[in-house]
Amino acid sequence: MQPTMPRGKIYLIPTTLGSYETSDQVLPSYNIQIIFGLTEFIVEQVRTSRRFLSFIKHPVPIDQLVFHELNKTTLHKDISQYLESIQDGKSIGLLSEAGTPCVADPGAKVVEMAQERGYAVVPLVGPNSLILALMGSGFNGQHFVFHGYLPIDKSELIKKIHEMEGNIFRRSQTQLFIETPFRNDAMFDILVNNCQPVTKLCLATDITLSSETIVTKTIALWKKEKPDLHKKPTVFLLYK
Amino acid sequence: MQPTMPRGKIYLIPTTLGSYETSDQVLPSYNIQIIFGLTEFIVEQVRTSRRFLSFIKHPVPIDQLVFHELNKTTLHKDISQYLESIQDGKSIGLLSEAGTPCVADPGAKVVEMAQERGYAVVPLVGPNSLILALMGSGFNGQHFVFHGYLPIDKSELIKKIHEMEGNIFRRSQTQLFIETPFRNDAMFDILVNNCQPVTKLCLATDITLSSETIVTKTIALWKKEKPDLHKKPTVFLLYK
Repeated sequence: MQPTMPRGKIYLIPTTLGSYETSDQVLPSYNIQIIFGLTEFIVEQVRTSRRFLSFIKHPVPIDQLVFHELNKTTLHKDISQYLESIQDGKSIGLLSEAGTPCVADPGAKVVEMAQERGYAVVPLVGPNSLILALMGSGFNGQHFVFHGYLPIDKSELIKKIHEMEGNIFRRSQTQLFIETPFRNDAMFDILVNNCQPVTKLCLATDITLSSETIVTKTIALWKKEKPDLHKKPTVFLLYK
Repeated sequence: MQPTMPRGKIYLIPTTLGSYETSDQVLPSYNIQIIFGLTEFIVEQVRTSRRFLSFIKHPVPIDQLVFHELNKTTLHKDISQYLESIQDGKSIGLLSEAGTPCVADPGAKVVEMAQERGYAVVPLVGPNSLILALMGSGFNGQHFVFHGYLPIDKSELIKKIHEMEGNIFRRSQTQLFIETPFRNDAMFDILVNNCQPVTKLCLATDITLSSETIVTKTIALWKKEKPDLHKKPTVFLLYK
């Protein structure tokens, strides 16, 4: 009988939000050590991943690293192939494009398969805009829901906003969601026109960047002072 | 007219989960820089906070630092007093006992008041067991809900479990919750006896510690292999 090779692990690796210059601010030094020990990565875009790994000065020449691309067209059998090295005893990294892998970010399909195969999955600490926004909002962190993107259809959207407000007042549940940055201003208008004046809205913009602002006000107060959210990554939070 | 003093900020400061030895692993070096610049902290327990600040070698003698204690008996007017330094131009820190402030952790009342007064609130990156568990689970990170602790009453609890399962299959919504560590085994038994065999349960235990395990299996498979969760901090996640 052949000895069993110890399996590799899959590390889930966060990156900065928007600017590599914030690396020391948002990534523990341990992450860099782990990344330096890896030579095979599952990534969303090879080009930007190479740039990030160059920025942090990966000791292996970038063209000797192996990249597997993960996007909406990636098939189940491709992912299966990406994970082959783990079976052979080599650890690999699932590298986010911005923020933490798998949370409001692709990658969950890869982790799902790794779990099905019993591989060790090791998430590393990094900036998650949802949690940072929730911390800064002053809202209930014992009970919250993240909806991802809300419906685009206006009547569906208004229905959803009313459902969220119901859960705020009935369940004391903080409501989090995101929007495509160029639609932020339209979302803001719909919120102030459809929420109750006493409902609180927190706008968490440019999280971890030097332009970061996290501001909570009632809808009544926001009506008097429209913020500039155009094209700025923003987490929206509603609570009472 | 007197010149207006620029106001201080309130930094929301995560700490390690369970072992200070993991500091380099879970805290960006920037956090330590920020903490070193602060001399006034709102904390849950003065004793453990002093120990943490000693561990990271805060340059100011510990007995010259100012601590304000925050617990269930802290009054609104106490918090108001804790924030006075900010008005006077001094920045202060809200220091978690473990993990990130305000998320499944006290502190939201302090941030709520800081927001009402228009102070700058700056959350720092650190280990959040919910997000790390969600990353490692392989479950849907585009839509999820955190329930905090579930009801203690058994019939209420079973009702809640069925409600959660409904939202998994109807809304593709990942369900997260926690339990007092000495009740983990009882919670596990109730889950395997009341969820559908095809439902998936992820148990994320001892997150960020050397004993960390994050394992996802169907209820049918968990029934065959009971894990040891006794007194181990665990995040429970359900999905399909």
